[in-house]
Amino acid sequence: MRPPYSRRASQLKASDIRELLKLTKKPKIISFAGGLPDPQCFPYKEVDVLSTEVIEEDYVKALQYGTTEGFNRLRRALARRMNQKFRTKVHADEIIVTCGAQQGLDLISKVFIDRGDIILVENPSYLGALSAFRLFQAKFAGVPMDNDGLKTDKLEKALKKFEKKSKRPFLYTVPSFQNPTGVSMTLERRKELMELASRYDLVIVEDNPYGELRYSGKAMPPLKAMDKEGRVVYLGTLSKVLSPGMRIGWVAASEGIRHKLVLAKQATDLCTSTLIQYIAHKYITEGHMVRQIKKINAVYKRKRNIMLKAMDSEFPEEVSYTRPDGGIFIWVKFPKKVNSRELLKRSIKKEKVAFVPGDAFFINEGEGLDTARFNFSYPTEERIQEGIARLGRILKKELRA
Amino acid sequence: MRPPYSRRASQLKASDIRELLKLTKKPKIISFAGGLPDPQCFPYKEVDVLSTEVIEEDYVKALQYGTTEGFNRLRRALARRMNQKFRTKVHADEIIVTCGAQQGLDLISKVFIDRGDIILVENPSYLGALSAFRLFQAKFAGVPMDNDGLKTDKLEKALKKFEKKSKRPFLYTVPSFQNPTGVSMTLERRKELMELASRYDLVIVEDNPYGELRYSGKAMPPLKAMDKEGRVVYLGTLSKVLSPGMRIGWVAASEGIRHKLVLAKQATDLCTSTLIQYIAHKYITEGHMVRQIKKINAVYKRKRNIMLKAMDSEFPEEVSYTRPDGGIFIWVKFPKKVNSRELLKRSIKKEKVAFVPGDAFFINEGEGLDTARFNFSYPTEERIQEGIARLGRILKKELRA
Repeated sequence: MRPPYSRRASQLKASDIRELLKLTKKPKIISFAGGLPDPQCFPYKEVDVLSTEVIEEDYVKALQYGTTEGFNRLRRALARRMNQKFRTKVHADEIIVTCGAQQGLDLISKVFIDRGDIILVENPSYLGALSAFRLFQAKFAGVPMDNDGLKTDKLEKALKKFEKKSKRPFLYTVPSFQNPTGVSMTLERRKELMELASRYDLVIVEDNPYGELRYSGKAMPPLKAMDKEGRVVYLGTLSKVLSPGMRIGWVAASEGIRHKLVLAKQATDLCTSTLIQYIAHKYITEGHMVRQIKKINAVYKRKRNIMLKAMDSEFPEEVSYTRPDGGIFIWVKFPKKVNSRELLKRSIKKEKVAFVPGDAFFINEGEGLDTARFNFSYPTEERIQEGIARLGRILKKELRA
Repeated sequence: MRPPYSRRASQLKASDIRELLKLTKKPKIISFAGGLPDPQCFPYKEVDVLSTEVIEEDYVKALQYGTTEGFNRLRRALARRMNQKFRTKVHADEIIVTCGAQQGLDLISKVFIDRGDIILVENPSYLGALSAFRLFQAKFAGVPMDNDGLKTDKLEKALKKFEKKSKRPFLYTVPSFQNPTGVSMTLERRKELMELASRYDLVIVEDNPYGELRYSGKAMPPLKAMDKEGRVVYLGTLSKVLSPGMRIGWVAASEGIRHKLVLAKQATDLCTSTLIQYIAHKYITEGHMVRQIKKINAVYKRKRNIMLKAMDSEFPEEVSYTRPDGGIFIWVKFPKKVNSRELLKRSIKKEKVAFVPGDAFFINEGEGLDTARFNFSYPTEERIQEGIARLGRILKKELRA
């Protein structure tokens, strides 16, 4: 039998990066490749207690189907947290609870993307977003970045180009501690971006999974806090601050867009786990979240510092890298003659160290072959030190050759 | 701002039936409209104990990201259960864990449907499946049913018609205790269907949420058990037997299709809640599921009998209805002159009783206006009796007029 696959399914392929990285799951490998939180930070005792409370007090509702929008008390708690932390003015009604931020990307694709539409993305960008958009047969226009984030002058050029087209795309951006680069957009750039969005009537999809993981530098408003026209569709998640295995994310969008997203979600999975939503609600409203974020910020700050210090002392001078104020990634640029994929193969084989070759995050094949993404949240402090030292040895040898 | 919605989103509308049924959520209304399990049957004590065990023993994994395919031990447990209960020959590798069976429908849509494709469906059919397929801009060809299930001769006619087209569709069916009719396909019809599928090289999507809820009659193999060619994509769920709020479903499909579904799921939500998957795994492998299914079968059998008996004594003779051997729905046919939507409005207003007007489940507007779906799993025994008696009063009055 030859199954009658859809066009999108015929194009679906396992990414060769993922295949390459399967090698890195062995416990002997020191891996900087993933994007996982540190499991030692999981507040499992609190989750344990709260799950018992929820089941005993509320099982009739917590084990039943819930509304598609999400558990109302959780929606209120999420809106309140956003508004307190980020000075947004989000109403609980504008929130839809999703299965991680990734489902937000799926729903946004459903609501905005027709086949062949061109989506504006930072280049490089988050791989999972590119995959979500590709599944809806989108094309991409990449906007270059520097250490101040997305280059707004280049964005304007791209927007001018698209003005002539009938269907305008949205811009997908991770303005704070971007995946993969760790770079944050400066306040000035954010303002410029919002002005451009207004001038060109552009929808902005703001993905902010790391916004609360700041270890240095000044707090920065998310674009949603600067949005007076309801054009920012904001994606949040508890994956990086509480637990990814709970799969709680959310979208905050103005009424019309939110309504479409809910209709799309209804046909997609009816609702997100009620039980988990009840637990998450208690976790936030009983004050655990505030303590948890303090705790992981302290842990990740140490890990970031250790990785940067190790890179400073172990990497050859010709290798440069970002010094992010938060998040979980550092972006490395090797000298042009280094092919990051080849380096990965050798570093796994010879030194049992892994990272993600940076070309995976670029929209065109062959871009960024001299770059790499390093994660510092998951590996232990000892392994960060040891892994960077080992990679430093290879790099020194190869660059000398 | 006018958001640049996709074509599919522009067509997305809140169903008027849902709007109508919002009225039925008031506690005073006796509602036969939903499709909810009886919350008094939720095994909350076991879920409570198991969640604590899982979190204490396995939090490092249970709160972390999991693989897209799902938790391996749960996949094995699901395959084993299917094979024991239904004599299928499903391998754990062929299983992908989803957020309810509804997500299975979303992933299947992604993998098989191009805009404009015509999907074969029973007419009437499950509303959530129609919504999932519509989101991918599918069209429908309805195959009529009788008390023996989908009419295979009519299916063959439809298949002949589609043979000329380049892209062949799949057939979506709920062969056992169908939603909305409660009807099951006879063994003979199942055999005919599998022969037709083989002859016309047809993919069958078999949705089996109620397969284990049998109260009378002989056990019937699912189509998947009769599938020698890997053409049945099977959808299962724990929503009706354990808890819908946990959102655990699965798809069982042959290797090639399963692979595509996993790639689609990766872009859709990365993975299903690991924590919930760990709990579900323990629930099944520690023997609770077997006891639970016995328990709910006893409860739902009583409720079905009470509803049928009440209909027998309270409904006028001209009203007919199915006598399902399982599941959670009874399908009612009123005399032609009754408009089910109008009846619903009056019965909510005058007698505070609700049901779903049957036209909602048909693929063409205006079909089945004299039909209705009644759920007996959610309301209490007393409310079933009282609600049917009240509706009987209205019906007698109206049919006499």
